[in-house]
Amino acid sequence: MTSVDRWLLPDGVEELLPAQAAQVEALRRKLLDLFQCWGYELIIPPMLEYTESLLVGLGSDIDLLTFRVTDQLTGRMMGLRADITPQAARIDAHSLNREGPVRLCYAGSVLHTRPKKPLASRSPIQLGAEIYGDNSLASDLEIICLMLETLKTAGVDRLTLDVGHVAIYEAVVAAAGLRAEHEKTYFNILQRKASAELATFLSELDVSESAIRQLEGLKALHGGEEVLSKGRELFADIPAAVAAIDYLVTLTETLSERVPGLSYYYDLAELRGFHYHTGLVFSALVSEHGQALASGGRYDDIGEVFGRARPATGFSIDLKAMLGLLQGELEAEGIFAPYSNELSQWQAVQKLRQQGERVVCGLPGQAADESCDRVLELAGDSWQVVARV
Amino acid sequence: MTSVDRWLLPDGVEELLPAQAAQVEALRRKLLDLFQCWGYELIIPPMLEYTESLLVGLGSDIDLLTFRVTDQLTGRMMGLRADITPQAARIDAHSLNREGPVRLCYAGSVLHTRPKKPLASRSPIQLGAEIYGDNSLASDLEIICLMLETLKTAGVDRLTLDVGHVAIYEAVVAAAGLRAEHEKTYFNILQRKASAELATFLSELDVSESAIRQLEGLKALHGGEEVLSKGRELFADIPAAVAAIDYLVTLTETLSERVPGLSYYYDLAELRGFHYHTGLVFSALVSEHGQALASGGRYDDIGEVFGRARPATGFSIDLKAMLGLLQGELEAEGIFAPYSNELSQWQAVQKLRQQGERVVCGLPGQAADESCDRVLELAGDSWQVVARV
Repeated sequence: MTSVDRWLLPDGVEELLPAQAAQVEALRRKLLDLFQCWGYELIIPPMLEYTESLLVGLGSDIDLLTFRVTDQLTGRMMGLRADITPQAARIDAHSLNREGPVRLCYAGSVLHTRPKKPLASRSPIQLGAEIYGDNSLASDLEIICLMLETLKTAGVDRLTLDVGHVAIYEAVVAAAGLRAEHEKTYFNILQRKASAELATFLSELDVSESAIRQLEGLKALHGGEEVLSKGRELFADIPAAVAAIDYLVTLTETLSERVPGLSYYYDLAELRGFHYHTGLVFSALVSEHGQALASGGRYDDIGEVFGRARPATGFSIDLKAMLGLLQGELEAEGIFAPYSNELSQWQAVQKLRQQGERVVCGLPGQAADESCDRVLELAGDSWQVVARV
Repeated sequence: MTSVDRWLLPDGVEELLPAQAAQVEALRRKLLDLFQCWGYELIIPPMLEYTESLLVGLGSDIDLLTFRVTDQLTGRMMGLRADITPQAARIDAHSLNREGPVRLCYAGSVLHTRPKKPLASRSPIQLGAEIYGDNSLASDLEIICLMLETLKTAGVDRLTLDVGHVAIYEAVVAAAGLRAEHEKTYFNILQRKASAELATFLSELDVSESAIRQLEGLKALHGGEEVLSKGRELFADIPAAVAAIDYLVTLTETLSERVPGLSYYYDLAELRGFHYHTGLVFSALVSEHGQALASGGRYDDIGEVFGRARPATGFSIDLKAMLGLLQGELEAEGIFAPYSNELSQWQAVQKLRQQGERVVCGLPGQAADESCDRVLELAGDSWQVVARV
């Protein structure tokens, strides 16, 4: 490898140079302060853990995304976290082990063996918040409000909230009495919204006329508010499906009061993170931006493998993906102190810094610093700050 | 693996729970603000890179510390960073490619296959600062002053600065005319300060009497200021060694003016990071604490493999290792809003948060929150904040 390509970074692995890094750092602080204001406590889980702790019944998606290394001290397999949520669940269930609701937040790097979506980063900076210990609508509502406030704080407006509920799919499949292998095929077809395939699949299926109609109808149940009444009608004989639709109605009614101007998109066949989520699933999209900026949902009982099943709901965003949406240029601001070995200059510089000024000390041979708008000069026997000429 | 041990973290891999995480986050911000005040620009390099970029002539120490994974997109080998300095060097040499001095800083996780020292973390949070493009004493001096200010900001006082210069060892070995295999043995013995072994080794060596005296004397040259004059005398016929000692004298003279009350420890045979450092090496120790809290040195030309050799000097600390030295308890502060589905409560809560208050919303069935010192109550038709009873 020559010096020419040693600086190449792997695909989907980015470095942030000063202008971008300053933006990400400023946003990170603003958002963690927001979470703090809402009562969420910061945790800092480690970058790697034993795979048994990291990959807890989250399905094959996250399994395949996780880099593995061998622990040289024990020979056991460790994984580099591809998601921080399972770590937060472990901390709630075991390390904190508190009674009552627990609100946690985090910000840190995660790594993916391959991009989750085309063009996605393999090294996002995941920032998120979770509520443990409450299984009511109130916690889902709070998490969505916090997600929307997070995006507003990042300067993102005109949002569409995409909502779904995995219980609808589960209830429809159960009511149809699909066998395991058929369910797997149906899941796969639905996820890809593959119409022709669905028709063939259903034509070969040995279930009731009404079940066929429901399995087929579910695929089309995404769009505006009309989807809710259509769903209620289609699944009228499946109480669990109707209850899940009612949940979405109650949720969005309260949300409309709290967050006026928000648009909604309902997807009753939403299966994102199906092996992980247990109820409401949601994501926020910005009109100009194709992909979801933030997403989350309910994932009750994830802590069970750590010895303590607790209700859970949460959301996360990728700080790096917000970069393209941020505005603002850094202005030149600071004082340049031309090179000098004088103790009196050093003392003047330190005094200015203690007052909160940014002071860049010149090094031998350095005439100026473009990032500074002022200069420290010796006037008589005292050091004075003057405008840069 | 049962639920009982799923929560076990690998040795040397720590999680930070709320109280500790808040301390680390507060310190991280204070220190990055300090670096900003001194003119250092933040960069955020990625957690992993191709090993060819990450492991650039840094010697076998860092090689063995680095976890490796295969890039599934290319089949090439990637490394998880065990140090951020080589990444900063790559960014200075290639990504920024500016003329004149460049000051960079960073804060992020690094991972080690095994602890660097007994009981050390395998997942430190490394925070550091570097100056590229200046080969004068001025930049070494600035970096040491910034390191001391960093520790002061973290609340650490009564420091001892341990200084050395790798040119002394190099010059003594060159003057003795040691062959490569002998040099390797000598290096190894010196690093372990193994006296008996050194005597045997020297007795079998075919070099001049004076060279033997110098090779033997170097081992003992660590301690107070007297070490400098002893070194000057012993190496009087080796100009490069004398020049390096003079460098230490000039450095500590200016430092004594700038940072009164600092203690010094001179180690002329200091070989820490020898394959990496090219001049001054230093570390800061606190009297009550055995190990170095912060360390650094000069590592000129590290950017050469990226096509651009530049002088470089820098230091780093492990934020997690500072935790034991930090004081302060978090006080209960915030407003608890008992569960309500009233829009007016939501609006009152949001208004308080916008004023910077921390407000924790109660969830159904939750009577109080221990982290709050006040409560939001409905008085007549308006929401009022009252002290918690």
